[in-house]
Amino acid sequence: MDAPTARKPPRERRRKRPEDLNPSPPRSERYRHLVNPFEPARALSEDHLEAIHGAAIKLLADIGMRVLLPEARTLLAEAGARVDESEQHVFFDPDLVAASVAAAPARFDIRSRTGERDVAMGGRSVAFFPVAGPPHSIDLDRSRRAGNLSEFEDFIKLTQAYDVLHGLTPAVEPQDVPLEVRHLHMTLSQLLLSDKVPFIYSRGRAQVADCLEMIRIASGLDHDRFVQEPWCWTVINTNSPRQLDLPMCEGIIDFARNGQALVITPFTLAGAMAPVSMAGALTLQHAEALAGITLAQVAKPGTPVVYGAFTSNVDMRSGAPAFGTPEAFKAAIASGQLARHLGLPWRSSGVNTSNAPDAQGAYETMINMFGALQGGANMIIHAAGWLESGLSASYEKFVLDVEMLQIVAEAFQPIEVSETEIALDAIAGVAPGGHFFGAPHTLERFRSAFYEPFLFERSNFEQWVESGELTATDRANRVWKEVLAGFEPPPIDSEVRSALTDYLERRRDEGGALPRT
Amino acid sequence: MDAPTARKPPRERRRKRPEDLNPSPPRSERYRHLVNPFEPARALSEDHLEAIHGAAIKLLADIGMRVLLPEARTLLAEAGARVDESEQHVFFDPDLVAASVAAAPARFDIRSRTGERDVAMGGRSVAFFPVAGPPHSIDLDRSRRAGNLSEFEDFIKLTQAYDVLHGLTPAVEPQDVPLEVRHLHMTLSQLLLSDKVPFIYSRGRAQVADCLEMIRIASGLDHDRFVQEPWCWTVINTNSPRQLDLPMCEGIIDFARNGQALVITPFTLAGAMAPVSMAGALTLQHAEALAGITLAQVAKPGTPVVYGAFTSNVDMRSGAPAFGTPEAFKAAIASGQLARHLGLPWRSSGVNTSNAPDAQGAYETMINMFGALQGGANMIIHAAGWLESGLSASYEKFVLDVEMLQIVAEAFQPIEVSETEIALDAIAGVAPGGHFFGAPHTLERFRSAFYEPFLFERSNFEQWVESGELTATDRANRVWKEVLAGFEPPPIDSEVRSALTDYLERRRDEGGALPRT
Repeated sequence: MDAPTARKPPRERRRKRPEDLNPSPPRSERYRHLVNPFEPARALSEDHLEAIHGAAIKLLADIGMRVLLPEARTLLAEAGARVDESEQHVFFDPDLVAASVAAAPARFDIRSRTGERDVAMGGRSVAFFPVAGPPHSIDLDRSRRAGNLSEFEDFIKLTQAYDVLHGLTPAVEPQDVPLEVRHLHMTLSQLLLSDKVPFIYSRGRAQVADCLEMIRIASGLDHDRFVQEPWCWTVINTNSPRQLDLPMCEGIIDFARNGQALVITPFTLAGAMAPVSMAGALTLQHAEALAGITLAQVAKPGTPVVYGAFTSNVDMRSGAPAFGTPEAFKAAIASGQLARHLGLPWRSSGVNTSNAPDAQGAYETMINMFGALQGGANMIIHAAGWLESGLSASYEKFVLDVEMLQIVAEAFQPIEVSETEIALDAIAGVAPGGHFFGAPHTLERFRSAFYEPFLFERSNFEQWVESGELTATDRANRVWKEVLAGFEPPPIDSEVRSALTDYLERRRDEGGALPRT
Repeated sequence: MDAPTARKPPRERRRKRPEDLNPSPPRSERYRHLVNPFEPARALSEDHLEAIHGAAIKLLADIGMRVLLPEARTLLAEAGARVDESEQHVFFDPDLVAASVAAAPARFDIRSRTGERDVAMGGRSVAFFPVAGPPHSIDLDRSRRAGNLSEFEDFIKLTQAYDVLHGLTPAVEPQDVPLEVRHLHMTLSQLLLSDKVPFIYSRGRAQVADCLEMIRIASGLDHDRFVQEPWCWTVINTNSPRQLDLPMCEGIIDFARNGQALVITPFTLAGAMAPVSMAGALTLQHAEALAGITLAQVAKPGTPVVYGAFTSNVDMRSGAPAFGTPEAFKAAIASGQLARHLGLPWRSSGVNTSNAPDAQGAYETMINMFGALQGGANMIIHAAGWLESGLSASYEKFVLDVEMLQIVAEAFQPIEVSETEIALDAIAGVAPGGHFFGAPHTLERFRSAFYEPFLFERSNFEQWVESGELTATDRANRVWKEVLAGFEPPPIDSEVRSALTDYLERRRDEGGALPRT
């Protein structure tokens, strides 16, 4: 059934189209600014949405959060929150929370140093960011090992190479670089190897100040102009449940005062750091995100913030985190509703639990990704290369995921409907039971009509066996090597380059800055 | 970032929950009747939807279809169509088409012989059917080979074993059974090994009559009662472009007159059997589906029909069919709109081009599957086990896909929202920065809170390496063997069983029936 015998075009027709064998013009530029064309899905009724939002507001007011940084507590107290200094505890007044949410922009752009790779946040925009945070790297040739700077730079190059990835991340931790200068090297590598928006860790005031200064230098702007728009981003993970620690508080305040973008993401794993019930985990996520958003707006009204949602669940048997679960799918869609309820851009993920870049990894990533996409996420992090619950950055998974992201980006392009596209004349011109291979309507459009994968194979089984029965993961191993071998960094002004390396060297000689603990 | 260090529960807590290590009660019964909770997505504006529908109506009226069966042309002519007998060509009057669509039911059930596995078609119902039609089987142990009856039965057993699969298919062609009795064996195997709704090929009147009689025997009903409801289903593939061949015409008429379910699916591959433009391919799909639906309703008003959508595209370079493409994703969503425009149940697919049950296979299936799911498909065929553009049925892919379908089925269950699920008391009971592992709220719900995968692993990397670094595909190889080894067929009345085998033997001795060519 479904006509498996009718699969091949007549041989003579295939021979007649040599001009169509030329590669199509690159489509990848259309991936630079993606808009999700589909109405966001809803997993919660309006009543249930209100119930969770209301419970989070009540939680913040009555149960509160521990906020470890005295400066943060002082700022919040001055803004009207009730603070118990002996317990380092803050109770958030509902009006303060509402006013803070109202102060945050519904949309903003993260600016890129060349202006070519600005990232829109909010509305129907979608931006993909690769894996962020793993301590390890892995690929098919070399087993899992501690990440190093060279591999961190590999992932920057891979990110730069694909237009469907919209910004940079700390794809793997460069553990070979001493802690006090690691932030300097991570920032320099991002700025020299890519023109996409860089990421800074919030690991303490001195480090953040260094990184912001380097990004300011790369932007070519003075300080006053620089802080008027975001040029980089960070993630603030609350210490779920109900705690904001010192570096996170400092990061919120420093990013806010410098006008940079905060992605505030509670780490609410249902059954571990959050209630086992999804409604409970979502309530805690919502409350903690609101607490971070409130602190940011108190520090500086109008700070660009993204509502981060990372709610997944633990494995029932081991208590270990699980990603790509059906519970996380639903939580993602509900999180989109909660973010839109606040009128803020929202961030989701494409993550998995798999230990290998195999079919499990693909399916789990895709389930998570479709929760994000169907829910209308604006920013999807870990969208390429995440493996093993985030403990490894995988070279092969990265390339596999990029192919999938490009397919998604193509799927988001509209179907053109017009008289010539409907093509009744072309249909009338082909006899019943015939084919359209040689029709003028086909020949005019054939070269650019369809997306052409770079990794997914369409050879027939016999050809595939002859060429070695390589899986997609095997082929991905070849692709990332080719991309890295052919990589050329985007241009950067030589004076800017010198200023950046000078800055790094000076700060290194001064002893750098250790992370805040 | 995203707190990779906060991933493990405290060791003492993990030791305290031995009772939670018991497997959860089976959840699979909730998969038997699935409802898609999400509003269907839209890829076409209302104007564009009307434009494509209108163009299809015009195509049927002005350009028409070749209909090879004289009886079908006579039926259509009597109903008001204009027929050119010399060209075997039918021009469908728009009013006839509209009246036919109006006569078809918006919803119906395909009944199962035990009543336990009825399948709802229409509304928000979703039913998954495994791979259908490949000539070959493949698994990790044995290379690709011609399908045989034993393997056809393997796939029936695998289908029967998982509640998330709702009906049977011709999962692989049993090429070792002579053509004139193959239909008898395929039907007997389905009825003896499963209580799910069987599939019959429309390969000629005598074969269809045999199969229907066997299914009637299994249903325990007399002929008059049997034909009042559908007890089995078939797929009608038009010979795109614009042709209905002899066995397809006969199948439509015979299924209609016997009240059985027709899934009318044009085989519109853009660039080959359909225009290269998606709007053109959708227009042709819509017209051909309407032609089949019209013939069915003319043969017997009220015949249960499903609007089948299979529009994908060919590969630009080779002209070979490609599945799991972004174009097919959009076409699926648009097809859902076209089906709802007619008020009919609609069928989509979960297909791929991959030669291996690897990450490509998973990603392509999932892209196709999410086009179907996001578009609100009622019936998704090829949802498990399809490989290699439908040329092979894969044992490992089958099991991998079932895991994914179960995750989808779980994702379709509602988020419970209530005071106890929001759990503010439980949240207040855990100190900031603490955890919920030992909380009473957790312990009460932990055992059944989350879906537990049977194939996707959540062991850590070190455990995974120790246990042999098996990919999900490797593990799937173990799972299908275990399922087949432990398979027990559902009960069947011994008299019914005898009647069925007697029928097969009698018809075999009479010479069976060759397929219509």
